[in-house]
Amino acid sequence: MSEYSFTTTHTVPGTFARAGVIQTPHGSIQTPVFTVGGTKATVKTLTPEMVKDLGGQTILANTYHLMLRPGADIVEKAGGLAKFMHWDGPTFTDSGGFQVFSLGVAYKKGIDAVAHTEKGKADNAKASAKQLAKVDDEGVTFRSHLDGQTLRMTPESSMQLQWQIGADIHMAFDECTSPLASAAYLRESLDRTHAWAKRCVIEHERIWKEHKKAGKPYQALWGVVQGARDEKLRRESAQFMASLNLDGFGIGGVFQPEEIPETVRWVVEELPDDKPRHLLGMGNQVSDLFLGVEYGIDTFDCIAFTRQARNGGLYTATGRINITNAKFKDDFTPIDSQCACYTCKNYTRAYINHLFKSNEMLAYTLASIHNEYFVVNLVDRIRESIIDGSFLEFKKTYLATYFGKPFTL
Amino acid sequence: MSEYSFTTTHTVPGTFARAGVIQTPHGSIQTPVFTVGGTKATVKTLTPEMVKDLGGQTILANTYHLMLRPGADIVEKAGGLAKFMHWDGPTFTDSGGFQVFSLGVAYKKGIDAVAHTEKGKADNAKASAKQLAKVDDEGVTFRSHLDGQTLRMTPESSMQLQWQIGADIHMAFDECTSPLASAAYLRESLDRTHAWAKRCVIEHERIWKEHKKAGKPYQALWGVVQGARDEKLRRESAQFMASLNLDGFGIGGVFQPEEIPETVRWVVEELPDDKPRHLLGMGNQVSDLFLGVEYGIDTFDCIAFTRQARNGGLYTATGRINITNAKFKDDFTPIDSQCACYTCKNYTRAYINHLFKSNEMLAYTLASIHNEYFVVNLVDRIRESIIDGSFLEFKKTYLATYFGKPFTL
Repeated sequence: MSEYSFTTTHTVPGTFARAGVIQTPHGSIQTPVFTVGGTKATVKTLTPEMVKDLGGQTILANTYHLMLRPGADIVEKAGGLAKFMHWDGPTFTDSGGFQVFSLGVAYKKGIDAVAHTEKGKADNAKASAKQLAKVDDEGVTFRSHLDGQTLRMTPESSMQLQWQIGADIHMAFDECTSPLASAAYLRESLDRTHAWAKRCVIEHERIWKEHKKAGKPYQALWGVVQGARDEKLRRESAQFMASLNLDGFGIGGVFQPEEIPETVRWVVEELPDDKPRHLLGMGNQVSDLFLGVEYGIDTFDCIAFTRQARNGGLYTATGRINITNAKFKDDFTPIDSQCACYTCKNYTRAYINHLFKSNEMLAYTLASIHNEYFVVNLVDRIRESIIDGSFLEFKKTYLATYFGKPFTL
Repeated sequence: MSEYSFTTTHTVPGTFARAGVIQTPHGSIQTPVFTVGGTKATVKTLTPEMVKDLGGQTILANTYHLMLRPGADIVEKAGGLAKFMHWDGPTFTDSGGFQVFSLGVAYKKGIDAVAHTEKGKADNAKASAKQLAKVDDEGVTFRSHLDGQTLRMTPESSMQLQWQIGADIHMAFDECTSPLASAAYLRESLDRTHAWAKRCVIEHERIWKEHKKAGKPYQALWGVVQGARDEKLRRESAQFMASLNLDGFGIGGVFQPEEIPETVRWVVEELPDDKPRHLLGMGNQVSDLFLGVEYGIDTFDCIAFTRQARNGGLYTATGRINITNAKFKDDFTPIDSQCACYTCKNYTRAYINHLFKSNEMLAYTLASIHNEYFVVNLVDRIRESIIDGSFLEFKKTYLATYFGKPFTL
């Protein structure tokens, strides 16, 4: 069983892009990498063999969801997250912070990425009426979205839960603020996130000592940089996280594609080069993957690709199609003739259209395989382009084909 | 590409049980066999590779469902049922007769297996109010359960549709009557089923000549024996079907386990030994498989096993369990420790319980793999017991363990 480590193997001059390897007790991860979403200890509609087959290297589950069901104790008794879900590879857990907030008080403050749209405002108003969560300096009190039970999460309990769940890489418990929060609230919230990160490190080290004594492998802790759209706060937050004994970093609260170049750069310029960086909860834009990598991101997660798949929204090299459209009823070509995924190798648009129209569950499986392969494979190709020196050229040609016009960010 | 044939390789003295091989243009089927349900050209929640992996040899789809969606013409243009659904093996289609009736007029006459129960009566009354189907000597007029469109099915159109869908084995279009129908109605209905079978054979031969000229492979036609619980009618029906140019036989309208020994025997005694026999739409009783084989059945179909799987009802060697039960939350053993299916080799009851509680689609996939393996594998073991001469002993010990007491039928 190998220890945790990160090594950079290739860089792209004039950018922050790099290729590398994260070593974990459950195996290595070639970066940049798209982590496959496994929120509730399952990748929706897919077996772990399907995830391997489509190129998935690592799965990201969620502490909030697993503490509610089946309970972190059940996952621990099962032998940890990977064993519980029959996944033979590295795993991440998100801290649960975002979910604790996004299902409660944070909505009121507009954490939702679409808070500035009319629908976002309506959703926030609705969520706010429920008042599911309340933050104080000690932690967060919230109500379970499953049964309304009042629960508490603190930096310490998040660490304890994550060690129980047993992923290879944990995230520190943070407060994710809205891009629209007031300057005063951002300041207050960032101070809290920093104080919590410190407490996370202390609790993490305490638990690690116990585990070490028991002969158990290390589980890494990554801190989360916040600071919304404020350069000063972002740099301060990155510097603070860099000063702590952390194994890597998440960058939270970056919601819009056009924010990536600037916001990620501020952070990456302050972080040490010898630790990996994760862009937390990116959008569903293909361009975000290129921009993230260009500005120094090593790992990504996003559940939008598979969610869109379940709604029939399928990615191709020239943009997205909706497979439920009547014009595909007698289209006997694959979703994307350039795609080498299991679905495209074996099924036609006509068949997948039929499965969707018939509400057959295999529709969701085949569509999820395709979209997840699309994004995992795209990040793989980005990694290869870093290694062979063609990254910027690949970005240019790929995105021009995808959007049907030059991409300028 | 091999022609259609059936060969018996082993028999069990003192019973009608036999092992054999059905040869089709898409490969051979070792009998007795459980045909996997693929009603709408998909085995619910499973990829064809999963079906192969669990031991599935052949898939049975439904003409009624496929004519409505996506349309038999689409399946034909795709290259036929097997190619459309990416199944590399033999296929059956049911004629659509049962579905045409069961969604309409037949309900009024009590075709439902539970028509004699209070719930069955209520269901029938409800269905009857809708008047979805009307039978005459020429065919059946019915309304689509999808969009209410009025449609017509005749013996000829059923044959045309089945040749378009292109399964290796077709079923003749018949009228399935209730076990509670009057003697007069049974007589009238049986005469109609016989006249229809004759017309099916004529139309089948006409289409085959066209296909042969075009160099296309043969598709077999099996006739369906009806006659409810009446020995005279059953024997007459079997004799009539035996007199036609048919490639095999279905036995329809046998609904209760305790009817199998007698009813199937009446029919099998009249049918030629050199053609295979299918028990249409058996129940979900494990004992039915043994009884069917004992009285001469070669092929079975039943969608109840996978439907139960999707509701959490899972088969074990000692009976059925419901995996959603709270007691399985921390049970880290497989569904059935004697089972060698993919699910039992890789997942615990606790994990599957978690997936069901979380409404995760993988729950249905893992449960369906298990139940379908259970029944497919059981029929495989029955075949092996015929070959090695232990059939009756296997029946006795297996069912005594399953029911927890000796089985006496």
